[in-house]
Amino acid sequence: MLQRRVVGVVGTGHVGVAAAYALFIKGLASELILIDRDARRAEGEAMDLMHGQSLVGSMTVRAGTYADLHNAQIVIISAGVAQRPGESRLALLHRNAEVFREIIGELDRHAPEAILIVATNPVDILTYVAQELSQRPSEHIIGTGTLLDTARFRALLGQYYGVDPRSVHAYILGEHGDSEVAIWSQVAIGGQRILNRTVLGRPFDRTRMQQLFEEARTAAYAIIDRKGYTNTAIGVVIARLVEAILDDEKSVLPVSVRLNGEYGIHNVCLSLPCVIGLRGIEGRVLPELAPDELEGLRRSAEILHQSLRELSL
Amino acid sequence: MLQRRVVGVVGTGHVGVAAAYALFIKGLASELILIDRDARRAEGEAMDLMHGQSLVGSMTVRAGTYADLHNAQIVIISAGVAQRPGESRLALLHRNAEVFREIIGELDRHAPEAILIVATNPVDILTYVAQELSQRPSEHIIGTGTLLDTARFRALLGQYYGVDPRSVHAYILGEHGDSEVAIWSQVAIGGQRILNRTVLGRPFDRTRMQQLFEEARTAAYAIIDRKGYTNTAIGVVIARLVEAILDDEKSVLPVSVRLNGEYGIHNVCLSLPCVIGLRGIEGRVLPELAPDELEGLRRSAEILHQSLRELSL
Amino acid sequence: MLQRRVVGVVGTGHVGVAAAYALFIKGLASELILIDRDARRAEGEAMDLMHGQSLVGSMTVRAGTYADLHNAQIVIISAGVAQRPGESRLALLHRNAEVFREIIGELDRHAPEAILIVATNPVDILTYVAQELSQRPSEHIIGTGTLLDTARFRALLGQYYGVDPRSVHAYILGEHGDSEVAIWSQVAIGGQRILNRTVLGRPFDRTRMQQLFEEARTAAYAIIDRKGYTNTAIGVVIARLVEAILDDEKSVLPVSVRLNGEYGIHNVCLSLPCVIGLRGIEGRVLPELAPDELEGLRRSAEILHQSLRELSL
Amino acid sequence: MLQRRVVGVVGTGHVGVAAAYALFIKGLASELILIDRDARRAEGEAMDLMHGQSLVGSMTVRAGTYADLHNAQIVIISAGVAQRPGESRLALLHRNAEVFREIIGELDRHAPEAILIVATNPVDILTYVAQELSQRPSEHIIGTGTLLDTARFRALLGQYYGVDPRSVHAYILGEHGDSEVAIWSQVAIGGQRILNRTVLGRPFDRTRMQQLFEEARTAAYAIIDRKGYTNTAIGVVIARLVEAILDDEKSVLPVSVRLNGEYGIHNVCLSLPCVIGLRGIEGRVLPELAPDELEGLRRSAEILHQSLRELSL
Repeated sequence: MLQRRVVGVVGTGHVGVAAAYALFIKGLASELILIDRDARRAEGEAMDLMHGQSLVGSMTVRAGTYADLHNAQIVIISAGVAQRPGESRLALLHRNAEVFREIIGELDRHAPEAILIVATNPVDILTYVAQELSQRPSEHIIGTGTLLDTARFRALLGQYYGVDPRSVHAYILGEHGDSEVAIWSQVAIGGQRILNRTVLGRPFDRTRMQQLFEEARTAAYAIIDRKGYTNTAIGVVIARLVEAILDDEKSVLPVSVRLNGEYGIHNVCLSLPCVIGLRGIEGRVLPELAPDELEGLRRSAEILHQSLRELSL
Repeated sequence: MLQRRVVGVVGTGHVGVAAAYALFIKGLASELILIDRDARRAEGEAMDLMHGQSLVGSMTVRAGTYADLHNAQIVIISAGVAQRPGESRLALLHRNAEVFREIIGELDRHAPEAILIVATNPVDILTYVAQELSQRPSEHIIGTGTLLDTARFRALLGQYYGVDPRSVHAYILGEHGDSEVAIWSQVAIGGQRILNRTVLGRPFDRTRMQQLFEEARTAAYAIIDRKGYTNTAIGVVIARLVEAILDDEKSVLPVSVRLNGEYGIHNVCLSLPCVIGLRGIEGRVLPELAPDELEGLRRSAEILHQSLRELSL
Repeated sequence: MLQRRVVGVVGTGHVGVAAAYALFIKGLASELILIDRDARRAEGEAMDLMHGQSLVGSMTVRAGTYADLHNAQIVIISAGVAQRPGESRLALLHRNAEVFREIIGELDRHAPEAILIVATNPVDILTYVAQELSQRPSEHIIGTGTLLDTARFRALLGQYYGVDPRSVHAYILGEHGDSEVAIWSQVAIGGQRILNRTVLGRPFDRTRMQQLFEEARTAAYAIIDRKGYTNTAIGVVIARLVEAILDDEKSVLPVSVRLNGEYGIHNVCLSLPCVIGLRGIEGRVLPELAPDELEGLRRSAEILHQSLRELSL
Repeated sequence: MLQRRVVGVVGTGHVGVAAAYALFIKGLASELILIDRDARRAEGEAMDLMHGQSLVGSMTVRAGTYADLHNAQIVIISAGVAQRPGESRLALLHRNAEVFREIIGELDRHAPEAILIVATNPVDILTYVAQELSQRPSEHIIGTGTLLDTARFRALLGQYYGVDPRSVHAYILGEHGDSEVAIWSQVAIGGQRILNRTVLGRPFDRTRMQQLFEEARTAAYAIIDRKGYTNTAIGVVIARLVEAILDDEKSVLPVSVRLNGEYGIHNVCLSLPCVIGLRGIEGRVLPELAPDELEGLRRSAEILHQSLRELSL
């Protein structure tokens, strides 16, 4: 029997709605189910989307409860609590882990076979938390990780070299956060690596390049400073993952995945280029890293380990 | 020389950003320029969109000033001021007309050949105001009008009959607002008019149908009540108009247009089905109306006339 | 478990390949399986398509056998034998019915739950034959019918009125062939019926309109006369049906369906506007017909009955 | 004034029609003009496409003459004569150069500002011929070159490694033909070069890899052997180039370009990764080559020089 494509979104704040909107415009599923603690808010968002339906396709959007997810093939988790004034990072993390305990419990009950996409920050920690809490294989729980940072990095490199960012092959790996690592040794345009070379008339200006990576790394701060939150780029990132899974693309995308000894790193989630398909994470690519990149990746892992220890996970 | 497709968005509040996001995901232009009084906000939105660029295409998004619109073929006006506590509707309208005076002045100076899409409410009044203020032909200034209400109406009818809303042929015409008119006499599915007939096993239940129109007519209130504003559906509406113009589609869409005697109505903007293409509004379809529909349309026009008189326009 | 979308094409002549190419470019499935008696031809077509894969998406195309269709959700039947010199229409029909006996047998064995789309001519007769031969519900076997003629008709009306053909609401119903019927009484643009009215400045010129219908009705002859066969439009038609089914759209499209008393017609396949979704034909719309249209539809049914009698079906 | 997007296709054989069909389905322009010596054939193809119009969009397709191309922004040249029995390769080349003399003359007269895409084989020679014959800058004449071979190569590598071919970064450069060169030293998946490494569990098996390149290099023969011609992949290639130009993408794609000293090669057209945008070829990327790759590229250039000398160009 032919399957109806159903996608759930848990948490209809700025990020969840941006993801839902992107999915809706791209027509990636037949049905979208929005869930939020504030059921009326989810209802308002579902109504607003539905009113554009005839202009983009035939996707149905409705507000629902976890029980409505029994046919969902993918569930996006974009829920989470915000930092309270004076609250420590760790206290916040504890509260978000509690939120995840509830969500994952519900999802394990109602949608045990769905692939989960975790978008709540700190995404690497919460992806790990979700994997610990859930009965499903860890490959079925994907963190958006550095797919966003990588997209930012490519956009900025594309501007610098005057090329389509889709023609820039570059990765930011590791933590989605301050310790993330640009894999400069492998950045290439048109089959030409750029490190220490002149490409399209532009030399590799180490200072400029470092600024550009900083700009990618700290983009969220800059955007939050200007508009109060980030949502459109992460919405597109989530839609891209949904597409890769539903179409069983086997695309290679950097996402947060649990490491089991790769690069000597164990038992932590951080981003590596992964093969994404119908069964979630179906493979991992391990790029050769320059010594400083490898060191950076391990430092990134250590920082994440530290957070997990604080959480007693 | 081949033209680069450039679209401007004036006003990066909820509506402007939803429109920009929809255009971005659909890849409808090569360049998107965001303008806002709060330049940093526009900058934040441009940055956020750009960071998803490599995942959806090669569209460039940047914050800019009116001067940057000199190559724009279309400009979306989604700017406007919000109601102050205790402020009368008329006082608000006066303030928004002032905002439009400034915007249209700038656009006439910098982008005199661009097609303008007006999305700010009250859209029929402000479309008329924009036409009065601008030197460009009134056919080059399109109000989003009841395209949104029509889309809502089709979605609700589609749900009732269990069909794709794109297969529902229905229009809401007149004011985008309380006096709008459902053209029940012409609603059809699969070449079958529904009025007083049973279609797909569902009889024409007058009470249910009236409720359904009420739901479409008052949708904005219901959504604002739930999420505080409406933006995603109107974003899709704007993107649809941009597509119809850029691709010179000659699609027939209900938008706010200045009437010159049609149905005995003069000198006011309200929505009729119009042919939309490269030159803006290229034609108007005048559906035969049932007597009560015609009466409703004229009442709608009278209400709009009243507002224009209050504005002394 | 998330389903991989698999579509089969039986018969890789001009029509089958045009359909496969359209599906491929639109990226409507994850896997496309091509089957032909001439296995090497199917192989050549699969290779040619696959070589464009990285430029359009990640769809896999391969040549296969019926056994490879065990996961197919939709199978397109575009196979059939060509008329031999001196062969009668009836003799040809008998031979094509034999071809269908073999194909349906294989499909019932290997893909009993797939929705079948029949595109081979005479499509109404062969849709009926397929329904008789197959164990699956007749709603799971859809003939492309007058969806093609309707598309042609809308394109020609769109050119005449200067509007996007998607804004023309018009149907050709009945046999896909000489006896088909234009439902003039319901043709509408922008909610305005055109019969005997002036729309967009163009009066309803009966002679011109009749010519235009003739042009739609005899288009295949005109095209075959010029290029030897028809394939691109029917390819798009098939892709449209696949999309409506896979996305569970509930779109209303005129396709060949078995009648059970509608309009007093029994036990024959001809085209009516039908609701198309995941379960094939999920509903039928019965437009009110003018007396001459109803008479035309019944004559069309009679002609099809005659062919079925000749076939002893 | 907003520009209507117009694309011309000269030569409506298998390749021209596949390109037109791909453009049509993707809706990349507002108008498509088909030109062929056999005007009725072009007319038949235009009619067939137009009949699918309402199902894919609003693109207009019509048969025309060179004079109709005065607004065309891009013209695809897929015309050419076929080899006569016993005719030498050189004699065929002379005849095709004559065909190009006529076409380029007409295009310089009627569409002097259009970007030309040359798809006729031998594409490198005929791109050079077109550049010699035309008054327009050579960057405005692009040969499809090894974009097709590169797409084939990525598809085959994608199958081998079990990943989306869009995630395989690989190039075939040089002649589109027997002397083309796989740039193995730069092939990468997920930021990991594959040469002499194990990626995704698959070692670099030199024999298998060489076979795979052979398969890409000789694909045309294998397909022609099976179906008589190649057309669908090259159709997609052409549509990709049209998209990159119209959307001013600045994508990096391997196409046939005139070399002016790059890699020590002068005055011949062969494929390098080029930046494609509104102004045709806007930049060239010069990947570092392994010694055998550089040698292969120069040999490829020498073979092409030899052909040009024979043609006395």
